[in-house]
Formats: sequence, structure tokens, C-alpha cells
Amino acid sequence: MAGEVIPIHAAKIGVTDWGLTHSDVVYDVVPVREGTFFRLPDYLTRFEASLAEGRMDVGMDAVQIGDALHQMVAASGLRAAYVAMVAARGTPIIPGSRDPRDCANHFYAWCVPYVHVIKPDMAEMGADVLLSDEVRRIPDDSVNPRVKNYQWGDFTRGLFEAKEKGFETVLLADHAGHATEGPGFNLFALKGNCVITPERGVLQGITRQTVIEMAKAEGLTVEERALPVAELMEADEVFLSSSGGGVLPVRRINERVFSNGSAGPVAMRLRARYFELTLDPAYRTEIAYS
Amino acid sequence: MAGEVIPIHAAKIGVTDWGLTHSDVVYDVVPVREGTFFRLPDYLTRFEASLAEGRMDVGMDAVQIGDALHQMVAASGLRAAYVAMVAARGTPIIPGSRDPRDCANHFYAWCVPYVHVIKPDMAEMGADVLLSDEVRRIPDDSVNPRVKNYQWGDFTRGLFEAKEKGFETVLLADHAGHATEGPGFNLFALKGNCVITPERGVLQGITRQTVIEMAKAEGLTVEERALPVAELMEADEVFLSSSGGGVLPVRRINERVFSNGSAGPVAMRLRARYFELTLDPAYRTEIAYS
Repeated sequence: MAGEVIPIHAAKIGVTDWGLTHSDVVYDVVPVREGTFFRLPDYLTRFEASLAEGRMDVGMDAVQIGDALHQMVAASGLRAAYVAMVAARGTPIIPGSRDPRDCANHFYAWCVPYVHVIKPDMAEMGADVLLSDEVRRIPDDSVNPRVKNYQWGDFTRGLFEAKEKGFETVLLADHAGHATEGPGFNLFALKGNCVITPERGVLQGITRQTVIEMAKAEGLTVEERALPVAELMEADEVFLSSSGGGVLPVRRINERVFSNGSAGPVAMRLRARYFELTLDPAYRTEIAYS
Repeated sequence: MAGEVIPIHAAKIGVTDWGLTHSDVVYDVVPVREGTFFRLPDYLTRFEASLAEGRMDVGMDAVQIGDALHQMVAASGLRAAYVAMVAARGTPIIPGSRDPRDCANHFYAWCVPYVHVIKPDMAEMGADVLLSDEVRRIPDDSVNPRVKNYQWGDFTRGLFEAKEKGFETVLLADHAGHATEGPGFNLFALKGNCVITPERGVLQGITRQTVIEMAKAEGLTVEERALPVAELMEADEVFLSSSGGGVLPVRRINERVFSNGSAGPVAMRLRARYFELTLDPAYRTEIAYS
């Protein structure tokens, strides 16, 4: 915070910051495993794109942001971590202004022990996922999901619905009846030799990109396109991708059971391969702990 | 914050609070003018409804919340103020949980000098408003706008567009081509003897309600219903309502000029009447400053 590494419980932002009062924040999250960042340059590149699209100026370039993250994680001593970088709109320099251009944007970062979107034991068994019929994903002409943001109102409503009904997490469809994404993850459907993943109205996840690359390397065909719910329900296997857990097999969506009620074999292979890749020197940025 | 009155610059929330990271907040704002709250019981009732709908439990009832606001504003000495009451999801009691039901919700409040959504001199002249053609209001089956929330991503995009094009503020249409609301205000169109205000997909503003009551008292007909953009553009007068400024006349939307390019007479009459009402004993809650 403000250039200093401090304990997480002391890391706070003001209650009048538009980052809070207008959820006017762009952010990104990079995973750390075994003391190394995974694909750090890719996460930094996406964060920079979000900054530009969100019209945030924090006065730092990707190198400086990367250095700040590095210094913070090193000081924390965490060897497996969820590392967030955040830009907030701040408050207007001109008191009383309602113009977002008048705000002093600011950067901060924080890290905590590695976060699992779905607990590992659950993921190994295959997760039970609710496809909400009450809540629709916020359309991209309202809030752009490619700019990673904190506006989780649709996800939170869906999560309450899912948890009440005994599901692990929730998946949202858009207003046209296409499956999109869920809280913290992208979606994949396998049919025969083909992997389909939604393209529009979803975050362009780095783990999603990693899955696409791994699937192609395995000889699978990858289609990035709209995925109608009906087609999703006809899949052979379904899985999710997240920097909070890698590849997450799904065994059930609502009443529909996939891959005989367990984690599918292709999903499990990609899951193992993802964890290997996170330790591949080509993708690692080693952290110099003091 | 946490039951104590502290200086606004010291009022902060943690960077891992879901209130921030998921914009998982419900809030309300009550105006204070000349040392009195306006319609405080109505604002408290709406806040309680938002708490219930947002599934927040802050362990305080409306009386306790009202008392907290009263004590805070009295301590601040502010006689014209923007007074916010907020409930945030908090963080999970069970570390690593992704279940919103596991979070310790918390209440806080803050106040600053009275905020004008549109500056008073601008409002008296009639505001220039952009109807965005790039951004659509978040649909109510994604995020419920009746639960007052901080998810302003659509408004912020619209505000950037409006400010760049030289407009004071922005108005958003929904995906069906109906006018909805803007950042901090509801919308009204006058045609002949009839006042039309959008009903669905918008906040049920207390100032909106006050306008409806004032319009009826003036002998106008009030219709709460969908307002197609084409019909809005054919109005005799257009005005906005906000607890941050009362009734705000509009003289222009995009290229369309209303009421000969100035504040309309009905809007100005309702504006004056609103300010009178804020001092009417029937609606006042006097603040006991120490």
C-alpha cells in the first residue's frame, strides 16, 4: 500500500474511494506455486490492458508493478500464494466533482496463501455445479468482463442460490441462452475430440489460455465460440479453469451427470499437465526470498 | 466504523473484504439539510429491505441504525450532509471458504458535506445529458437495481463517454430500448399533463417517490412504466430526481433540446417544492448537535 509492504490486516482503502463506492477498480491475480510466479508477464500484460481499457493511470509500468509484487511476496515468505494487483479510481482532486477523469488513481497489491476456487479434494472427485436459472451474467455492453473487475453481484446472487441447493459453485448463462463463466473460472466442454470454450462475455483467462494451449498440444481441436446451454449439457466432459486451482473437473451440472459422475479423464490429464507447467522453467519467475 | 465516530480520512475497509473484492455491499444515503434528516424513516426502511434482499445481517435494527447516523452527524457538526449507511459482506469466518453465507457482515456509516449530483447553477439552467449509445444499464436479472449497490461499471463507462462529449452526466437505456436511470438519479418525462417515470430496472428512489407525490398534489397524472427512448425524446420537459440535489431539470439530451433550452417550468416548480418539503416538519428528523 502506497509503496510499503505492511501486514494484510492493516491494508485498507478509504470508505469514500470510488474504487469502493463505484466498484471502480481493475485488478488481476497471478498465482505463486513453489516459490515462483506462473506466467507473470502474461498476467502483467493483461493487467496493463485492463488499466488502459478502464482508463486508469497509476504511474507505474509493467516492470515496476512486477517488481512491487516480487518484493511483496518475498517479504511475505509465502511460497504458494494468491497475489492480487489492483488499481482503484481514488477520489476527485476537485472536491465535489462527479467526473471520473478528476480522480487520483492509485495502485496497491496484496497476497494471501493460495486460494482454491474449488477445494482440491472436491476438484479431484469432480465438482457439482449449478447452472442458475434465476441470474444472468452481466452483459458485456453493460460491464466488460475482459476488464477484470470486482462487480460480482450476479455471481454472488448465483452463489447463494447454488450453496442453498447444495452445489459447490455456480455457472451463469447470458441473456441469449449461452453458457458463460462463473465466480473465478472459465468454462470448457469436451465433445469427442473437440474442446469448446465461450469466447464473448467472459474473461480471457490466462489459465483458459493455458488450457487452450495444452488441449492443442494433446491433439484436441479447440473452438472459442458461443456455447449454447443445450450443447453444454450434451458434452462428454465439462471442466473449469482458474488461476485458483488450475483445471477443475465437473461431474454434474444441475441434474445432468457427466463422465459417469466422476472427474473426466481428459480433464484430469489436463489438470495434471497444468500443475507440471506451473513448474516449467519457461513459465516460471523465481522469487528471491530474503 | 465498528461503533466509533472517527475522522473520515481514517474510515477504511480491508482490501480483502468481499464488500470491496466482490462489490458485495448494500447501502443507502439520506440527505441532511438545515440540520435535519429528510424522510429518515423511509430511507431506513429501504435500507432494511436492501439488507434482507442482499442477505446481510449486521445485527442492528432500523432504530439502532438511525441512532448511529444521528450520533455521527451530530458529532460531525455538518448541517447539510450526504449521509451514507453501508453493510458489507466482510470476510469468511472459515478461512478459504468461498461461501457468502460464511462471511461476518458488518455495518458502517459516513458523512460528508452535501453532494450535488449536478451542480446547483447547472441544475437551475437545465442540465445537458448524454443518452449513451455505447453502454446499456445492467439488467435486473443480473444485478437488482432496487437493492442500492456500488456496482457502477455501466455508469462509469457512460460518465467517461458523457464527459468526453461535453455533457454533464449520462442516462442509460436498457437492452429493450427503454430509458432507465443514471449515476445517482431517476428519470421523469412530462408530456401534457402526464408525468412518466421508468418503473422496472431502476432504483425506487425516495426522491423519485417524493416527486411522484408532489406531481400528484399538483394535479398531474403519474405513470410508472417502461419509457421508450423515442417517447422520452418527444417529451415537453425532462427532469431527474436525486437525494443529491432534489429535482434536476434537463434542457438537452444528445441533440434534442427541451423546453426551449432552459429548465422547464414544471420541473422548476417541483424543484422549489422539494426544497420546501425538506424543511416540512412532517418529513424532518431534527439532529441534536452537541
